[in-house]
Amino acid sequence: MTSPAADSGEPSHEAVARACLTAVVPPADPLLGALLAERGAAAVWRALLAGESLRSGTGDAPDPARVERWRSRAAALDAETLLTSAADLGVRLVTPGDPEWPVQLDQLAENRPYALWVRGTHDLRNACLRSVAMVGSRAATGYGLHVAGELACALAERSWCAVSGGAYGIDAASHRGALAGGAPTVAVLACGLDMNYPRGHENLFGDVCARGTLVSEHPLGTRPTRHGFLVRNRLIAALTPGTIVVEAGRRSGALNTAKHTLELCRALMAVPGPITSALSAGCHQLLRDHRAVCVTGADDVAELVGHIGADLRSDGTAGPPPTQLDDEARRVLAGVPRGSGAGAATIALAAETGIDSALRCLGLLAAAGFVERGPAGWRRSDASRAQATGRVPL
Amino acid sequence: MTSPAADSGEPSHEAVARACLTAVVPPADPLLGALLAERGAAAVWRALLAGESLRSGTGDAPDPARVERWRSRAAALDAETLLTSAADLGVRLVTPGDPEWPVQLDQLAENRPYALWVRGTHDLRNACLRSVAMVGSRAATGYGLHVAGELACALAERSWCAVSGGAYGIDAASHRGALAGGAPTVAVLACGLDMNYPRGHENLFGDVCARGTLVSEHPLGTRPTRHGFLVRNRLIAALTPGTIVVEAGRRSGALNTAKHTLELCRALMAVPGPITSALSAGCHQLLRDHRAVCVTGADDVAELVGHIGADLRSDGTAGPPPTQLDDEARRVLAGVPRGSGAGAATIALAAETGIDSALRCLGLLAAAGFVERGPAGWRRSDASRAQATGRVPL
Repeated sequence: MTSPAADSGEPSHEAVARACLTAVVPPADPLLGALLAERGAAAVWRALLAGESLRSGTGDAPDPARVERWRSRAAALDAETLLTSAADLGVRLVTPGDPEWPVQLDQLAENRPYALWVRGTHDLRNACLRSVAMVGSRAATGYGLHVAGELACALAERSWCAVSGGAYGIDAASHRGALAGGAPTVAVLACGLDMNYPRGHENLFGDVCARGTLVSEHPLGTRPTRHGFLVRNRLIAALTPGTIVVEAGRRSGALNTAKHTLELCRALMAVPGPITSALSAGCHQLLRDHRAVCVTGADDVAELVGHIGADLRSDGTAGPPPTQLDDEARRVLAGVPRGSGAGAATIALAAETGIDSALRCLGLLAAAGFVERGPAGWRRSDASRAQATGRVPL
Repeated sequence: MTSPAADSGEPSHEAVARACLTAVVPPADPLLGALLAERGAAAVWRALLAGESLRSGTGDAPDPARVERWRSRAAALDAETLLTSAADLGVRLVTPGDPEWPVQLDQLAENRPYALWVRGTHDLRNACLRSVAMVGSRAATGYGLHVAGELACALAERSWCAVSGGAYGIDAASHRGALAGGAPTVAVLACGLDMNYPRGHENLFGDVCARGTLVSEHPLGTRPTRHGFLVRNRLIAALTPGTIVVEAGRRSGALNTAKHTLELCRALMAVPGPITSALSAGCHQLLRDHRAVCVTGADDVAELVGHIGADLRSDGTAGPPPTQLDDEARRVLAGVPRGSGAGAATIALAAETGIDSALRCLGLLAAAGFVERGPAGWRRSDASRAQATGRVPL
């Protein structure tokens, strides 16, 4: 598998620096987030190695012990091994500005991931265009597992991708339901993509990899930590236009994802259950306090997070017909190959337009399900299927 | 059992006319409602018998066929039998202005009942002061029956009275739960109080009668009709500060009560259930559309419909201690007998205050659980229990 950066040869200095930073600074460090925004990754990395000041223009002087921990880890890091071992396992690096970067993460501001490690057949940005997060208890009830699986499958049949955390219980039922329904699924892990945590999900992760996407902020070899799980939850909320809490007790970790969802002003949904079940008490509290909307099926979800006008219908159709595209979008669509992929520059040339215009059109076409971005570049979705379901063939 | 009107001897002309009107005009007739407000019941009754115009000052000329139906029924009515047969069965007549009249019904305006036929040991107005309506499907699931019974019982233990419709399913489970929890319960029937409809509830109605209140807008002998059920629902909604839909399919009659509840600006609550149950779909729709608040227990309900400050605590206490009463209220309370009842005039005399002031204080004392109005007049609730639970001993 080639890295998205392979089009332009080796990963840039910026990308390498971001990759290295994922290995030495725990995710969602606001100081590093601010420094990256101010100076760029390569400069921050150089300053870290050189022992220069890491004071952000907007913040107080950083805790010296913390910076020293970063510096000693940075000094010990072998960047070459970091990147080649990932490439050997088919893990690609996705950084801000890459075509595969999910721009919705930018709303996290200084808590935005430094970079993402991604594995799997599906383009992460494309998969998340029409996605919904599904979260809930690890120790789910039979009811919760049934509901998660059925809902993910019904959403998948309407071409909605389920994003979850790869854990036991509701997470796993959601991933499996989405795959059963024929859509990709995205598992956001709190450890390195080679760790197979939890161990019992080795097969599930293999399936997700083959027909969806595994994502992590952590480089290979990172073990999961409590902090890792909590910051991972913000990523699940930020990747998707909405989060469904399927089954959660009053102190479930899923409520942490719900909190992030509300902070990001995304749609929060909860599935009700029997009031006699302690594992639905968290969902009911969200409903009672008017923080979540009650959803009982894929139609409810599509109405809440779907594209206005496209997803109100329950007949499974979505996206405008190609005849409604403007001239430029139609030329760009014509320039996208059907089988293998092509870079944006090639497509822009074929469409007789600029790269910026081509990228804008490609984004719109992807959102409408006409094209998708795979590892080898942009390619045409099967037109009839795209028109019927608004989404790519699997 | 004596009628509340017995204090002042025979029922007034107004009351008798209202009783007769319940027998000749179907409930909730807006023309009759307007006429009663304009002319009073005795004048309307005389005009009806005399064949005079029944045109309301605010409306169009009434349909002559409709008025003729009323007139012929009125001519055939034996008022004496109507009243004595009710009294023989222990059924009392309650009309607007009576101390037992639930003034919250006045919000129904021209749809207010002409009069109520009441049977049972508990004062209707008093029972409804601290009440909640519980409605739902007749063909309820085991889950719904369990939840209705438990919720009504838990509310009863906090001195909340359940008001329902006496039907099979959720209604019956609510009445039984309330009785099991030691509170009175009010069954609002869509037929005469001698009809025992549904037949299988003869024993239940006996229990409600012995430890609560049966109510109907219809005189003895009236069979239930579809129209009767629908207008009965407005009464359930109007008697209580809030309605809980425990279990309801998408087309359940309980949703009709929910509609009345919202129209009257009372609190609407719904109990969630498994999304796999069609009999919870009506509840979930109310929640999804933000028409009802999600409730999962007595604490939720008390917070929504309780008196501010008194019902936020879940330790079962309610009402101010007697030491917080003002001077006049304390004098009035001292004038209320402990065992049998006394009229407001007697109490006002003992308290050295006017009748109006005494009635105002008695209302407040009843709301706080210090006194109750029984068939023989006002009497003291057991003070310690009243202070502990805010309600009367049974």
